[in-house]
Amino acid sequence: MTTLKIYADRVSQPARAVILFCRLNGIEFEEVEIDIFKGVHLSPEYKEINPMEQVPAIVHGEFKLFESHAILIYLASAFPGIADHWYPADLFKRAKTHSLLDWHHNNLRRGAMGYLLHLKLAPLFGVPLNPQAAAECRRILEASLWRIDSFWLQGTGNFLLGNDRPSIADLSLVSEIMQLQMLEEDDRNQIVGPFKKVQQWIEDVKNATQPHFDDIHAVLFEAIAKMKEQQANSSVPGS
Amino acid sequence: MTTLKIYADRVSQPARAVILFCRLNGIEFEEVEIDIFKGVHLSPEYKEINPMEQVPAIVHGEFKLFESHAILIYLASAFPGIADHWYPADLFKRAKTHSLLDWHHNNLRRGAMGYLLHLKLAPLFGVPLNPQAAAECRRILEASLWRIDSFWLQGTGNFLLGNDRPSIADLSLVSEIMQLQMLEEDDRNQIVGPFKKVQQWIEDVKNATQPHFDDIHAVLFEAIAKMKEQQANSSVPGS
Repeated sequence: MTTLKIYADRVSQPARAVILFCRLNGIEFEEVEIDIFKGVHLSPEYKEINPMEQVPAIVHGEFKLFESHAILIYLASAFPGIADHWYPADLFKRAKTHSLLDWHHNNLRRGAMGYLLHLKLAPLFGVPLNPQAAAECRRILEASLWRIDSFWLQGTGNFLLGNDRPSIADLSLVSEIMQLQMLEEDDRNQIVGPFKKVQQWIEDVKNATQPHFDDIHAVLFEAIAKMKEQQANSSVPGS
Repeated sequence: MTTLKIYADRVSQPARAVILFCRLNGIEFEEVEIDIFKGVHLSPEYKEINPMEQVPAIVHGEFKLFESHAILIYLASAFPGIADHWYPADLFKRAKTHSLLDWHHNNLRRGAMGYLLHLKLAPLFGVPLNPQAAAECRRILEASLWRIDSFWLQGTGNFLLGNDRPSIADLSLVSEIMQLQMLEEDDRNQIVGPFKKVQQWIEDVKNATQPHFDDIHAVLFEAIAKMKEQQANSSVPGS
């Protein structure tokens, strides 16, 4: 049998989406940890796997692939017996799935990732914080959540595009929103609080993907706890 | 026969890619002009077509779709007789095409579009110029061109992914680079000049898609000429 290797760091939201998809569909894989906070994604060895120096990437036999949406589509197409709802074969449903995945790049992903980066994470990558860029990304993030609430979650089903069952897009977008757990609780509540449908949808995706969802997100929550501990220790009371 | 309507403004790079694809493949369509500088994309009528208020969008019979990559894939799949090189059926070639299209969103597109917006176009949309954001986008743009030159154009063929014939990705990415004609010539030469393979590839895509390429880009060049004329008129000599 051809070996599937997934190069991932579970603190990365697209990496989690790919691992979650494999777990849910009984796809066997070997997980290779690429610690992005230690810069392993920048190593010469990893550049041989993904020259773009990002996670996730896969190697399936001789075939190398990066970009999480392309990976999800490949896995849904290459492995037999994957239920149709993940990546529908129907021309129109598939086109809508592509439209949503494309939209994600410049909207929810750009807003959520950019806000976290410029507000909190930049120093971990040797870049200064940038409040102006953070504010602009927050605006994109809130507008994106509004679009999900008022457009992408329209229809009869509980999932994106009004589907009755989740697709690869639900995995990608919910993984992104889970990253907002890195924010302070007040800030996160202020951002996500107004969007009731979004909150219900996150719960529905979690419920539809347990116990894998919590298992795969455990690493993220550990990283967040560690980060908050470090912050607390570095806040020396003023004298 | 089901009517295909393309809602487009040819000054928009993804709109041009969709129109070019249809012209090259003999797909009949009705083009509905959505003048983005006049804000027609924000009108209630257009929101019925594309609630995201962007061009391009299509309506094919009853089916509505937005996001240019999703549209290109849909058209390549829905119309009979489209040559395989545009969107290969082979699992591995198709996966690489998806990977490249996904990469484009957060790299070449983000860099090129952002640089133009923050350096030149923002006031047309009622937003101030932002030199800091422009500099960051320029960095992304140059890094993206380097990736195209050193990675995506590797291989024996003249086109992206080392293909012998262009794919929908070549149309999307070259349309994006053509937008840089809006820059001052010196600035554009400084950005694109170091990348000889990129320059040759642009010529190869043009040659492979004439006479449609020049025809579809004429509107862009007219808009640029008009913009430069207005700039010249507003630069009153100092007294």
